[in-house]
Amino acid sequence: MLDELKRVAAEVDRVLEHDDFPAAIVPQFLREAVVDYPRRGGKRLRPALTVWSCGALGGGESRALYPAVACEVFHNWTLVHDDIIDDDDFRRGAPTSHKQLQSVAGREMRLTDDAQIRFGRDFAILCGDLQQAWANSLLLKAPGVRAEVLLAIAARMQSFANRELVSGEALDVAMSYIDIDRLRPDDVERMFEKKTGVLFQFCVETGAMIALDSTTNDHPQIIPLAEMAMNAAVAFQMRDDYLGIFGAHGKFGKPIGSDIAERKVTMLLLYALESLGEGGKKELLSFFGRPDCTAEDMEKVRTIYRESGALEKAAARAAERTAAARAALEKLPESPYRRSLGELLDYLLEREV
Amino acid sequence: MLDELKRVAAEVDRVLEHDDFPAAIVPQFLREAVVDYPRRGGKRLRPALTVWSCGALGGGESRALYPAVACEVFHNWTLVHDDIIDDDDFRRGAPTSHKQLQSVAGREMRLTDDAQIRFGRDFAILCGDLQQAWANSLLLKAPGVRAEVLLAIAARMQSFANRELVSGEALDVAMSYIDIDRLRPDDVERMFEKKTGVLFQFCVETGAMIALDSTTNDHPQIIPLAEMAMNAAVAFQMRDDYLGIFGAHGKFGKPIGSDIAERKVTMLLLYALESLGEGGKKELLSFFGRPDCTAEDMEKVRTIYRESGALEKAAARAAERTAAARAALEKLPESPYRRSLGELLDYLLEREV
Repeated sequence: MLDELKRVAAEVDRVLEHDDFPAAIVPQFLREAVVDYPRRGGKRLRPALTVWSCGALGGGESRALYPAVACEVFHNWTLVHDDIIDDDDFRRGAPTSHKQLQSVAGREMRLTDDAQIRFGRDFAILCGDLQQAWANSLLLKAPGVRAEVLLAIAARMQSFANRELVSGEALDVAMSYIDIDRLRPDDVERMFEKKTGVLFQFCVETGAMIALDSTTNDHPQIIPLAEMAMNAAVAFQMRDDYLGIFGAHGKFGKPIGSDIAERKVTMLLLYALESLGEGGKKELLSFFGRPDCTAEDMEKVRTIYRESGALEKAAARAAERTAAARAALEKLPESPYRRSLGELLDYLLEREV
Repeated sequence: MLDELKRVAAEVDRVLEHDDFPAAIVPQFLREAVVDYPRRGGKRLRPALTVWSCGALGGGESRALYPAVACEVFHNWTLVHDDIIDDDDFRRGAPTSHKQLQSVAGREMRLTDDAQIRFGRDFAILCGDLQQAWANSLLLKAPGVRAEVLLAIAARMQSFANRELVSGEALDVAMSYIDIDRLRPDDVERMFEKKTGVLFQFCVETGAMIALDSTTNDHPQIIPLAEMAMNAAVAFQMRDDYLGIFGAHGKFGKPIGSDIAERKVTMLLLYALESLGEGGKKELLSFFGRPDCTAEDMEKVRTIYRESGALEKAAARAAERTAAARAALEKLPESPYRRSLGELLDYLLEREV
């Protein structure tokens, strides 16, 4: 699968390198910011979902390429705005967009520290806005796709990919402001569906609609793909939260326990709170939002998650959604593309990193 | 003309009231923010440009209605993000989107002042993102427009309306960070063309492409409309800057002199700096960015603008662009729509308010 993924990534890179949308953006530092995240690479999971779904339903891969790149750039604009909102410092091993722009101000202009921060934030807002348009633009110029099909996909990029995903992001942000007593594990699962599942689903539906020359996603061959994508995305996010607490130090992409330090609301946490008594709740929440948690504290948190049954419950939900993703995939006809999709599921759902 | 404008505004309101895009947005306070600016009204200049341009080239008005509303919602998302960037407090007589959302946090959640500000800003970013998708969505569902024409207009909404307008906004923001010595009056005019002219031009081109069933804006009947819109927009912005200094107190929409207090870079200022000696420059800039300017100070600024020749030069540029707008309009065939467009030019270019 990794070789296949690399092949898609190379095609994506080629389109990103040659597309003429960014060239006319001014000022230059903003143009550079717009191409920055998309060109940083990453795994290109979303374009692979689009291209392979098109192939799995008998479509020529190349017809799905521009829409696949559109999905990747779409993902990137949401990251740029997310990173402002979360005030994150790093993304894929380099400074986040607003931090990068902030350092442009520091280098090229004589600004106070506050003005540099503001400069970075303001231009990162505009950067994401431009990337959203770039994503739409890439989709709309897909060669060899019937105009009515393209219109239908473009409309879904607004009313599904954007509206549902941004609503999911909003739910995620809102969670950090809401009293934790008012949240249930199910709220996190619904948020995962919108924030991550929707774009995965949009990717496969886009490839499938192109393959079948269909103006609707409501089609017996498309529905299993959509189910696979949605379930895989949610299981993937659940695994992310699991690895954030139980993963191996230095192996998983972020520091183990940072979710606790950063007050991230997870299903593990909410399952634990549901079953703990007042004393247990108080102990667990005492670690929550504390940046100075020791390895010993983290071990205590893991013990609470194990003993309260939270780990088991969360693992059961993840297993259900993983099984649903795999079962949906089995409904597709056998093909090399189905095999690649299956290997992608293995990677997403069994990863340790 | 005003009656005609009211008729367009009523149609726009009707579409905004019934369109189903916002209904699925969660949380509720974000959904309310998304419909807020569009429903506040305003003059609906942009939809009128779209509808009348369609009519002026013989198209049925109703075919341009959804695209016209798309132009209005597009304008609104740019305002929401602009207002965050400028940290403005009011828009059309009510709190700006991020201030409104900030007060939601104050009312419904127990947050510190800093957290409320952050809440307002974060959700206003997402609000504009959703409105951008809403604008695209309204355009893409226009009934009675050929799919290929709609695709061409949608592609221009990305590569022209968005890319050029956001670049213009970025130039405007960048101006506030750049040393004033490095700016020329022409830089302001170019910024006006992108920040305001591009969307005016897109509006008329959209109406015209629908009327002519054309997949391109490069058409002998569309070019004069485009010229009219671009020139009118720039002349309109120049008039705005003129009224900001020379307008009548209590009549013009914002406090006279606030441009000086807020360090706004105008053509008047740059023309004056070009012709003043070191002493004169120093005097003029001493008022710049001072929130405590008296009526006497403002009279001094006006005298400098008059005596340096800046007023005359700026007025001459505005007159040239006004004349160009009117001359372009004259190239269209006579019709009630052309008359309405002409009256709109009168309103935009001769207003005192």
